Amino acid sequence: MSSSYGENFHLTIFGQSHSPAIGVTMEGIPAGEDLDLEELQRFLNRRAPGNNAYSTARKEADVPEFVSGLKGNITCGVPITALIRNTDTRSQDYSGLDRVPRPGHADYTAAVKYFGAQDYAGGGHFSGRLTAPLCIAGGICIQLLRKEEIGIISRIASIGGVRDEGALTASTAEKAFPTVSDERGEEMQARIAQVKAEGDSVGGVIECAVLGLPAGLGDPMFDGMENRIAAIVFGIPAVKGIEFGEGFAAAELCGSENNDCFTVEGGKVVTTTNHSGGILGGITNGMPLCFRVAVKPTASIAKEQDSVDLQTLQPEKLTVTGRHDPCIVPRAVPVVEAAAAIAVYDALLQRRKEMR
Amino acid sequence: MSSSYGENFHLTIFGQSHSPAIGVTMEGIPAGEDLDLEELQRFLNRRAPGNNAYSTARKEADVPEFVSGLKGNITCGVPITALIRNTDTRSQDYSGLDRVPRPGHADYTAAVKYFGAQDYAGGGHFSGRLTAPLCIAGGICIQLLRKEEIGIISRIASIGGVRDEGALTASTAEKAFPTVSDERGEEMQARIAQVKAEGDSVGGVIECAVLGLPAGLGDPMFDGMENRIAAIVFGIPAVKGIEFGEGFAAAELCGSENNDCFTVEGGKVVTTTNHSGGILGGITNGMPLCFRVAVKPTASIAKEQDSVDLQTLQPEKLTVTGRHDPCIVPRAVPVVEAAAAIAVYDALLQRRKEMR
Amino acid sequence: MSSSYGENFHLTIFGQSHSPAIGVTMEGIPAGEDLDLEELQRFLNRRAPGNNAYSTARKEADVPEFVSGLKGNITCGVPITALIRNTDTRSQDYSGLDRVPRPGHADYTAAVKYFGAQDYAGGGHFSGRLTAPLCIAGGICIQLLRKEEIGIISRIASIGGVRDEGALTASTAEKAFPTVSDERGEEMQARIAQVKAEGDSVGGVIECAVLGLPAGLGDPMFDGMENRIAAIVFGIPAVKGIEFGEGFAAAELCGSENNDCFTVEGGKVVTTTNHSGGILGGITNGMPLCFRVAVKPTASIAKEQDSVDLQTLQPEKLTVTGRHDPCIVPRAVPVVEAAAAIAVYDALLQRRKEMR
Amino acid sequence: MSSSYGENFHLTIFGQSHSPAIGVTMEGIPAGEDLDLEELQRFLNRRAPGNNAYSTARKEADVPEFVSGLKGNITCGVPITALIRNTDTRSQDYSGLDRVPRPGHADYTAAVKYFGAQDYAGGGHFSGRLTAPLCIAGGICIQLLRKEEIGIISRIASIGGVRDEGALTASTAEKAFPTVSDERGEEMQARIAQVKAEGDSVGGVIECAVLGLPAGLGDPMFDGMENRIAAIVFGIPAVKGIEFGEGFAAAELCGSENNDCFTVEGGKVVTTTNHSGGILGGITNGMPLCFRVAVKPTASIAKEQDSVDLQTLQPEKLTVTGRHDPCIVPRAVPVVEAAAAIAVYDALLQRRKEMR
Repeated sequence: MSSSYGENFHLTIFGQSHSPAIGVTMEGIPAGEDLDLEELQRFLNRRAPGNNAYSTARKEADVPEFVSGLKGNITCGVPITALIRNTDTRSQDYSGLDRVPRPGHADYTAAVKYFGAQDYAGGGHFSGRLTAPLCIAGGICIQLLRKEEIGIISRIASIGGVRDEGALTASTAEKAFPTVSDERGEEMQARIAQVKAEGDSVGGVIECAVLGLPAGLGDPMFDGMENRIAAIVFGIPAVKGIEFGEGFAAAELCGSENNDCFTVEGGKVVTTTNHSGGILGGITNGMPLCFRVAVKPTASIAKEQDSVDLQTLQPEKLTVTGRHDPCIVPRAVPVVEAAAAIAVYDALLQRRKEMR
Repeated sequence: MSSSYGENFHLTIFGQSHSPAIGVTMEGIPAGEDLDLEELQRFLNRRAPGNNAYSTARKEADVPEFVSGLKGNITCGVPITALIRNTDTRSQDYSGLDRVPRPGHADYTAAVKYFGAQDYAGGGHFSGRLTAPLCIAGGICIQLLRKEEIGIISRIASIGGVRDEGALTASTAEKAFPTVSDERGEEMQARIAQVKAEGDSVGGVIECAVLGLPAGLGDPMFDGMENRIAAIVFGIPAVKGIEFGEGFAAAELCGSENNDCFTVEGGKVVTTTNHSGGILGGITNGMPLCFRVAVKPTASIAKEQDSVDLQTLQPEKLTVTGRHDPCIVPRAVPVVEAAAAIAVYDALLQRRKEMR
Repeated sequence: MSSSYGENFHLTIFGQSHSPAIGVTMEGIPAGEDLDLEELQRFLNRRAPGNNAYSTARKEADVPEFVSGLKGNITCGVPITALIRNTDTRSQDYSGLDRVPRPGHADYTAAVKYFGAQDYAGGGHFSGRLTAPLCIAGGICIQLLRKEEIGIISRIASIGGVRDEGALTASTAEKAFPTVSDERGEEMQARIAQVKAEGDSVGGVIECAVLGLPAGLGDPMFDGMENRIAAIVFGIPAVKGIEFGEGFAAAELCGSENNDCFTVEGGKVVTTTNHSGGILGGITNGMPLCFRVAVKPTASIAKEQDSVDLQTLQPEKLTVTGRHDPCIVPRAVPVVEAAAAIAVYDALLQRRKEMR
Repeated sequence: MSSSYGENFHLTIFGQSHSPAIGVTMEGIPAGEDLDLEELQRFLNRRAPGNNAYSTARKEADVPEFVSGLKGNITCGVPITALIRNTDTRSQDYSGLDRVPRPGHADYTAAVKYFGAQDYAGGGHFSGRLTAPLCIAGGICIQLLRKEEIGIISRIASIGGVRDEGALTASTAEKAFPTVSDERGEEMQARIAQVKAEGDSVGGVIECAVLGLPAGLGDPMFDGMENRIAAIVFGIPAVKGIEFGEGFAAAELCGSENNDCFTVEGGKVVTTTNHSGGILGGITNGMPLCFRVAVKPTASIAKEQDSVDLQTLQPEKLTVTGRHDPCIVPRAVPVVEAAAAIAVYDALLQRRKEMR
């Protein structure tokens, strides 16, 4: 099932960029959980467009309507469905895209997969807008995890080759432009402004950490924490890579450098380093769970590109119009947090079954 | 379900390093497929230990017994279970590991997760030996994919920082030590010999490509080809990162550099470059599907390391004995191919449901 | 996942009797299917309340809004969500039901399961109203099955012990009160009128047949056609039994009486009788798939009943107010058809994967 | 997935009647559960053939070998696979069955489904022998449920129209021929002996009760206890109907007769009657969960029957040889208990996730 995730906390995301609504149906949250819907709205606002210079000019409030599953703000144990109405759509910006696919987008692959019946306007179901319902689900999971003293923080690790410096902390994650080094953050923003002026776009890397996890979460083989997180994070459009702990750098190390030795601290088993990113054999070891996500540059650019007319099979020049982010990395930060929260919450429910 | 994968082709891997047997139960292969069991054995032999200087001295034939699902070598449409008996086990090598966990291994996390009831001998269910049943399933999928003219090739892209040069081709994949540059391959083997002599280990990167895929395979969001492949590949012990196409390098590019323009070649829509790794919006575009996998250095090293006694919480020095690969990358190459084959075959079955 | 069904065609039903909306999220319908939304509305009207003397006076149009997954009336291959707004709710009718559970209802079990956080108004998620979204999904499946020349018919086999006579045919199924014998149908309606006058209710049996099925549908063991149909049909409130073919009567027969002999008719293998109800080993044999469903009497009755106050654990007398059907069997007929259609369509998608 | 069941406790049954082995792979049992393997063997012996006059003469020990998942008799938290070798097979008894299908068997439907590649010897994967691995899984669940003070009892309610009298109790379930009335039990055995002498067979009804269940188990809609139990029970060959509580009899009752009123007993909410069979809205109410299962007469009979040659499409007379039970009801009793135990244990694991 393509747009669903999770075995214990299960969600299905529905909607197209220009359908009447987008939304999410969620199952598996126990009854009696009280949700802070205002906090959820603040979380959604971090992702919402139109908030700053480097995001699309499309302005939509992204206010979810919960049509089922809540009594007031308390979960009643049955499926929760939340909707966001699509209002500020300009389908005319997308006329012709069913014939001449945009490079880097799913236009062509969707046309093949759906035999031409895809809803291509605004990218349809493949639009970055569909990360809003992911953030509804993730924002709820963040609140549920906090009750277990689990927190999720993240930062922009690099944009267009400009790299942040220093170590991620909770205070970094709270910044409007979350980099440890404000100077590096300004360089990144300048890089975004530059590519925007050139009608181009740029990618980046997001670093995320889950703090306060108990040891013993996650399962061997295909339901390890890496598998679980990767399986949802690649559902965020434009993500093309993920690594845990040292990740690709570990491939260049010796075992004696990469292994994390055990010691005892405050009566608790910990590791003296955290090259593993808090995961051994797919299972959390109680250290921070750390991963990095590679985000490709926004596929929509103003520069003219080569494409083909899918009906005539003749070459076509294409200039993408519409309203697009020159760099989606800043808006993708809360989306990565949402994805991580969902994966961790699902694993947490799984863990409950194992406790006798 | 921790040790299961796949929605349409579904497998469960069972067994521990020192249990009576390891094996795999597979569902979803249509009836009437004839399998070449000798070819399958040759594939398994690529992974099997004891074949060369840089692998563990544990010698086991890894000959599967098919106890169900086949009539001769023809699938009969019902679950297929294959077993490999464990014979050359030396459990005494592992005594004490339930108390003093090896750094970099799942000993500690398994002890927490399983409340001390884990089968720790030989790494139990977390042993690299469990990749043998994965290769049974994957080797079968490789044969089934070949009937659809889909092939999988791979190479060692780097070991311990020594990088291969040139582009991956089918002839590379057939080499005993699969690198494009034989010179680089020799350097890598020298690096392995060196760390072995030092009682240490080293990691590396494996590159894999799936050729001949039709466009239209894979699903949006959480069942995209990236999600599907990542979800199984992280089930291979020691994998800590995965990237598709340009991957992490894409994060440093502009959209105008990273987008793959469309053109027509031989009446078929293709892209002029393949930065996307053959996947747009989670769906194949008909170009080679390319990914790279980061493998950490083998956690088992002969050097003394710091650990703790889980019962007394006192520090302990640990020297890992037993028979271990100084670098598992060469033996992991067919395992990555197996994982990719399983993910692709599952997506192919999914695709059949969509065809009206 | 409690309110979900289906492996290949997957649906989740959401909503409570008095939440803003009820609805269904569906995945797995291929792209490019054109739906007849007017026909769907006519199907939904068969279930809708307020259409006749023996149904609740609650009047709601039950007009679904498709907020995603369609482009006009054509499926675009991605999740389809349809909503029905709840408008004619009278929550005051249900005050106190969280404390004093109605006999025969889920009030008590929901209170235990959801720790008192259940949305009890109108029966919440357990309301018969939730069969409306089931009919949206089923009505769509009926249209998709018709393209494969598969049809579903049903009748009222008995109400309160009054049994229909004669064999079910397509023309029976088209009647407003679907019995073969109109005389028996009138007796049944008189029985309903009688219990209504007494402030009581009555149950009945629905017979359903799926015609035009190819042989070879369904899977061994736990995904046989009986398993698949039973697993969804028991999701209809008030269903307490199901039998296929001769069903419970077969338990009294000899093998020589119950076995269906094979013969050839028009070049096709058929059976001379159909005691099996068209299913052997869980798999269709090409004969009509027949089953009967036992529906208990409506739990809501006007007569005073004994209950307890869940807070004080003191006895309480309860008289159920609100608007209720004295017999839900007539309105349950299209719901049983919907359930059968969903189960068959899911099996049909499964079958596509097996064809090489 | 055809031969799999369960969301939280998940099993896959594999094997054919004449393949090297049959068995089961199970996931989801927490680590550290100690199993009584001798008790399990005694449970398996209740199902095993050759124990009495009314069962097949095929003699096999049905001794499972646990090849994974246990350390001694303690679960270690990872998949458990158990095998039973097939030894006493007489494939020659089944020659020709691929061409001339036996009435009442899956021979024909399997031939269509598997395109002629089915393993028909001994009924292949459809053989009643495959209930042995179901009993391995179920026998384990029975032990796990007992730790939660949940017990499962059952009896033969009728055979060939001879009905037992009186109410099911634990002492009934312990009898070799489990009927309340020994006189009725003797009549049933006489009926079996009679049909055996005639070369015929006979069916019956099994009644099962689950005692000690907490209220709150099971889920609304498609994962209610009825759905869960029906979905597995129809996986037992020859089952053609199931009813809960009053079942089909409820269809003839008024609401005032069928509703179970609430009262308080020993500080606990109970119902004064149990027409619902302990389930309201799919969820247990703490009363005994009761259901009855209709078992058709054994399809294999010595009498000559009409069939067709599937290759020539000409009529054929068929006399089934091989060793068969004239009535499988007595041996099916522990299988129904096993199925119920699995369904309940899976629901119990599900329940754990809901507890905050």
